[in-house]
Amino acid sequence: MQKPYVLGLDMGGTNSVLGVVDARGHVLGRTSIKTQAYKDINDYVNALYEEAEKIIEPLGGMEMVRGIGAGVPNGNFYTGYIQEAMNLPWQTVPFAKLVSDRFGLPCRITNDANAAAMGEMTYGAAKGMKNFIMITLGTGVGSGIVIDGNVVYGHDGFAGELGHTTAVRGENARPCNCGKKGCLEAYASATGVARTAKEILTSTTKETLLRKLDVDNITSKDVYDAAEQGDEVAKEIFDFTGTILGQQLADFIAFSAPEAIVLFGGLTKSGDWIKRPIEEAMNQNVLPLWKNKVKVLFSDLKEADAAVLGASALAWSE
Amino acid sequence: MQKPYVLGLDMGGTNSVLGVVDARGHVLGRTSIKTQAYKDINDYVNALYEEAEKIIEPLGGMEMVRGIGAGVPNGNFYTGYIQEAMNLPWQTVPFAKLVSDRFGLPCRITNDANAAAMGEMTYGAAKGMKNFIMITLGTGVGSGIVIDGNVVYGHDGFAGELGHTTAVRGENARPCNCGKKGCLEAYASATGVARTAKEILTSTTKETLLRKLDVDNITSKDVYDAAEQGDEVAKEIFDFTGTILGQQLADFIAFSAPEAIVLFGGLTKSGDWIKRPIEEAMNQNVLPLWKNKVKVLFSDLKEADAAVLGASALAWSE
Repeated sequence: MQKPYVLGLDMGGTNSVLGVVDARGHVLGRTSIKTQAYKDINDYVNALYEEAEKIIEPLGGMEMVRGIGAGVPNGNFYTGYIQEAMNLPWQTVPFAKLVSDRFGLPCRITNDANAAAMGEMTYGAAKGMKNFIMITLGTGVGSGIVIDGNVVYGHDGFAGELGHTTAVRGENARPCNCGKKGCLEAYASATGVARTAKEILTSTTKETLLRKLDVDNITSKDVYDAAEQGDEVAKEIFDFTGTILGQQLADFIAFSAPEAIVLFGGLTKSGDWIKRPIEEAMNQNVLPLWKNKVKVLFSDLKEADAAVLGASALAWSE
Repeated sequence: MQKPYVLGLDMGGTNSVLGVVDARGHVLGRTSIKTQAYKDINDYVNALYEEAEKIIEPLGGMEMVRGIGAGVPNGNFYTGYIQEAMNLPWQTVPFAKLVSDRFGLPCRITNDANAAAMGEMTYGAAKGMKNFIMITLGTGVGSGIVIDGNVVYGHDGFAGELGHTTAVRGENARPCNCGKKGCLEAYASATGVARTAKEILTSTTKETLLRKLDVDNITSKDVYDAAEQGDEVAKEIFDFTGTILGQQLADFIAFSAPEAIVLFGGLTKSGDWIKRPIEEAMNQNVLPLWKNKVKVLFSDLKEADAAVLGASALAWSE
């Protein structure tokens, strides 16, 4: 009998969420442990195993599980190593092997954005697509590129860092956390939107509902709420952000000619306020042959499930 | 018996060069016809067949040929069609099928830059590599992207238009032939270098050997000759061109994490004058994990053979 379930692990710097998933993308059980509570990676893997047993037991036990997929910071698909992950207690460990040995199951790892792409292809907005680009708009900007039905890992396993392509050059380019300047991530992430809001509020005297808020803590949700009330500055923030993102998407299209770009993350909750400028800038900046031909889609996976689903999708290919 | 030869066709707007190639990349015979002399595509294909017979006859005849690969303007690998090729007498034709029917052999087509990538992977600087990016620096800037050993064609067959990614944004961005502004092609092509030379000569009073030349006809060879004599403006032209190209390469690396970038075309004859600024800008603009790790290679295929070899490489996979 084909084993009916896979386990998906979404490892973050704070929480590690583990779920049991079926082939249709239903999360049938979930649990979590605190990532930082285990200074020894073996203790972490043991704790993970004990939690896994609890959620899989009601579903028939570990023999019903086909494999484990994990989205982990700096996870290398090829080697199975977590490499130099600064926000984890164990910076470099052979994670896939440790998990596989403890669970007695195959384990595949990758980073969270590649896992998200797998999730969209397996259960979500990109189901049935062979060529698309996933962009995750969160605290940072991540990406997973799918070509001919496979996630692109490249020569070293680290392909798909589109958040660190250069969106803005020159003296005014914003510094990025990576040490470079002008990266897409410095504009299209949640922090990028907050920076844009702050820049406009502190460098102009434009009237806006956003002035009622603490200028250092404006979120894309705040900007959305203001835009919905007709606030021009809020619209300007979305136009600025969407234009920069759309321009970069045009360059990504020139690379791999995808059928669609799938966007995921908090910024997508702003709906057409952000989608319209993205599409406009994208279509203005592509070659004529792609004008109005490449879809921009928002992920329709439930946000609470998406990371676990994405990770779990890796395990079906075992 | 395994058939020992393939035919490679390099179709240009003026000449169409056809060669017989063996598995080691030796061009054993070559011939050519005038592309524009045949207003009917069937006449063109017939003429091609007659020429092919002449060069294959001494090698044992058409039964020694495994297949035909063709690098053609706007050639679509998936459909076998030439689509909307403005510089050909037949703008949209099912070229691969016409050739295959006339020759009684399988025929694969793609554009010239993808063919060049196949050539480098099969016989050239990228032999044995699974992940690299080919950039052709000619009248225009073309590209062929290889991931996991396969040329990337994308959803529609037209992936790999890196010459039309945006290198320069803003008001000063140069118009490109494609209708966009600031494309890499407007800077790193032969015409891009000529434009840069003209801009510097007409907007400054800097002393340079290049002032002896007709400002409208300066070539990268002229700039190279001046640089070799210590000319500072010539070096400035290479620094400017190489920096723009290197910056774009950094973004391409973030996409597919290639083992190497392979450069081909006239500009590569300028050797270290252009290679040094390319490498510097590239390594300044990549994420730390790729710094000084991605090779920049110049093609070592003979320029006269490269296009035919590249096209022929398509036919081995039949």
